Amino acid sequence: MPTWRQATIVGVGLIGGSLGLELKARGLAGRVVGVGHRKASLDAALDCGACDHATRDVVEGVTGSDLVVLATPVSLFRPLLGRAAQALGGGALVTDVGSTKANVCRDLPALLPDGVTFIGSHPIAGSEQRGVAAARPGLFQGRLCIVTPGPDAPADAVRRIADLWEGVGMTVRRLDPGEHDRLLAEVSHLPHVAAAVLVLALSEEAEPLAGPGWTDTTRVASGDPGLWRDILGDNADEVAMALKRAEFLLATFREALEAGDADRVERLLADAKTRRDRRLADAPPAPDPEAPAPS
Amino acid sequence: MPTWRQATIVGVGLIGGSLGLELKARGLAGRVVGVGHRKASLDAALDCGACDHATRDVVEGVTGSDLVVLATPVSLFRPLLGRAAQALGGGALVTDVGSTKANVCRDLPALLPDGVTFIGSHPIAGSEQRGVAAARPGLFQGRLCIVTPGPDAPADAVRRIADLWEGVGMTVRRLDPGEHDRLLAEVSHLPHVAAAVLVLALSEEAEPLAGPGWTDTTRVASGDPGLWRDILGDNADEVAMALKRAEFLLATFREALEAGDADRVERLLADAKTRRDRRLADAPPAPDPEAPAPS
Repeated sequence: MPTWRQATIVGVGLIGGSLGLELKARGLAGRVVGVGHRKASLDAALDCGACDHATRDVVEGVTGSDLVVLATPVSLFRPLLGRAAQALGGGALVTDVGSTKANVCRDLPALLPDGVTFIGSHPIAGSEQRGVAAARPGLFQGRLCIVTPGPDAPADAVRRIADLWEGVGMTVRRLDPGEHDRLLAEVSHLPHVAAAVLVLALSEEAEPLAGPGWTDTTRVASGDPGLWRDILGDNADEVAMALKRAEFLLATFREALEAGDADRVERLLADAKTRRDRRLADAPPAPDPEAPAPS
Repeated sequence: MPTWRQATIVGVGLIGGSLGLELKARGLAGRVVGVGHRKASLDAALDCGACDHATRDVVEGVTGSDLVVLATPVSLFRPLLGRAAQALGGGALVTDVGSTKANVCRDLPALLPDGVTFIGSHPIAGSEQRGVAAARPGLFQGRLCIVTPGPDAPADAVRRIADLWEGVGMTVRRLDPGEHDRLLAEVSHLPHVAAAVLVLALSEEAEPLAGPGWTDTTRVASGDPGLWRDILGDNADEVAMALKRAEFLLATFREALEAGDADRVERLLADAKTRRDRRLADAPPAPDPEAPAPS
């Protein structure tokens, strides 16, 4: 018997589409409903088997579901859930796949009727690619999913959402929503801005000389600007603090160079190398380098 | 008949060793002599066929050679060439593989006897790996080599050094040494410092959350600190200017976030994406992603 009678995925893009494929392939959901904005995406999702039924009507889409996964950009969660809430039945669970959690976990529960529970999730799997065309089973395998229950979240609901992500191959870690946003600002949002800065810092004459080192360092800068506008904007305070720290560290390097203090430069570089090598030793590269996660 | 009667490679590490393998495999040098500091490296270079003869004595090593390639860290070029110069015969050409060019191209020619010419080179091929154990044929294939003749360089010597690198599969571009250093500060040295900064900006609690996006963005930070101390120190003025520009751009993002100006954030991100995607369209990824170049 499947874990979920009917799962609705709102937003069948890379993450939503891949989740639908997994839920069906693993028999975790009796039926998968995809909700989307564009007919072409919904047709593609049906064609590739990411859902059994597709609709542009979110109210119809969530009716009768015991699991709803919000997989659109974060800025659409409120309006979509606001409309869908009326159709959610008691006992239903709602989660999301957003890259920021504090605002989401503060605002969404209030939109829900009694007996319906929201537990935030952030499956760290994705790539600078987007859309259901890039969806595939295996996207989540071996990756980390952060589940962010508030202090009042029912333990059973938290357990079931953790099971959802573990069921598609992820390792689950629980964090407070605010703590999630602070740490993600450091490991993901700051590197995203830094990658964009490294592109923007290039003069036109330098562009033809950009090689594989530059290409790697800037990879995430090819991500979708609209999606990242939402992520950075929704986590503006934490990102601003991380940026300040990066500005300070860049200035530290610059002042050491200006002072001719090569020893200091080497110590900073050695410290960075030690920490990075240790991190990689702790966590070997993800199994599938074809779909690296910027989120 | 080989192009070079005898080629001496001073420093048989990743680049020097790979060059020796290529010169022999392609029959470009009648004999390859490797000069090194550590006996173990020289033995490994002989074993893998990167040279025909190995010595720790640079004077012996360059005697009778019509090509000398300096492939040690840049800080050793002056002392090594100072000692070797007496043994160089008229007509010999000297080049290097250093990642910085202005100081090298200003200082080295003065060390040479009449009839011996120095032409600077920067083959942009390498990786965060080091040592002759990582050397392999194919390292240079399809990569860019920048040749940096001074204004008085004999055209014939420049042509022969360009032929050397084209002969092992590289595309050659000529630049003024100072211009090289300015542009490399932007495409290589700044990204290196930025990668280190992204590691150092991480709090300990955030480390376990670092995923593939962070891993890519920080890859070059695993490079050798001593080697990069030399590179950054030798190009301190240009790197400091590039760092200043990056500090300004980070502050631009931060101030937009602090002001809640999401439109501005999105415009900056979109500009970066456009420029990066255009660069990648112009230059498809290097043929061998196993050995990306940070230099």
